[in-house]
Amino acid sequence: MSKILGIDPGLHITGWGMIDYDGFQLKYVSHGTIKSSPSNDISSRLSHIFKTLSDVIEEYSPKEVSIEEVFVNKNPFSSLKLGMARGAAICCAGVLGLKIFEYTPNKIKKSVVGAGHATKEQVSIMIQKLLNCDSVKLDAADALAVAVCHAHHKTFYTVQK
Amino acid sequence: MSKILGIDPGLHITGWGMIDYDGFQLKYVSHGTIKSSPSNDISSRLSHIFKTLSDVIEEYSPKEVSIEEVFVNKNPFSSLKLGMARGAAICCAGVLGLKIFEYTPNKIKKSVVGAGHATKEQVSIMIQKLLNCDSVKLDAADALAVAVCHAHHKTFYTVQK
Repeated sequence: MSKILGIDPGLHITGWGMIDYDGFQLKYVSHGTIKSSPSNDISSRLSHIFKTLSDVIEEYSPKEVSIEEVFVNKNPFSSLKLGMARGAAICCAGVLGLKIFEYTPNKIKKSVVGAGHATKEQVSIMIQKLLNCDSVKLDAADALAVAVCHAHHKTFYTVQK
Repeated sequence: MSKILGIDPGLHITGWGMIDYDGFQLKYVSHGTIKSSPSNDISSRLSHIFKTLSDVIEEYSPKEVSIEEVFVNKNPFSSLKLGMARGAAICCAGVLGLKIFEYTPNKIKKSVVGAGHATKEQVSIMIQKLLNCDSVKLDAADALAVAVCHAHHKTFYTVQK
């Protein structure tokens, strides 16, 4: 078995999800959300994301990290904030020596729901069925989804070799 | 004396400048640029910024960090990239327990050149005169400028108390 950490970064809420995968079966391990208040300064908010993800990585020792590839279609200010949260998350995994894989939102949804334009709720329901776990927080469902997406593509790449 | 680290983050080039300040006199300490190639993956590029700034902080032990406050007027994709570099830099200073101060571009230019709309070259020339150091790289001049700006405002705050 080899653990995969999925991350869905955001300055307000960063979701994370940990799964285990042996090449055939997916197993749910854990999930959580990292929240930070806009009333705190940017340095504390980013450090909180970095430190919490460091603790998660230290506790579960994943081998690989999977994250959503961003196609920006929002305003520049939102992009800047999202960029800073992504920077903190990617930096944390990179500094701890983990390999990072990026997947487009469509690829993630297709991999979990079977359709590239599924809603957040549909992704959450399918993740709970696929991983046989209930009460996954909506904000962490996307993180578990990107981890599952990597597991599927990982197998594909292995079979192709 | 107390050291101030100025940072001018960017995904392609991050400039940094270190000065020493005793409440009256500014003293140049060091400066440098952290370059990363677009051919490297995003994780290596952000980790490179984080690790190099960690080394700089460890070597010079600054007490405070100063960084330009960003008013986004570019496209969302540029903002995302700038955001990730800022995220890595702020995160590094925050995780190492340093206090971060942000200043608007106009305040920085006014503080160094005397005018809010100075060019990059004017800032560079004034920084070299103010700090009595020549051959400052253009990319690091802005980082030294934001450090000088913090020194000036720091004094102002101290006097006001």
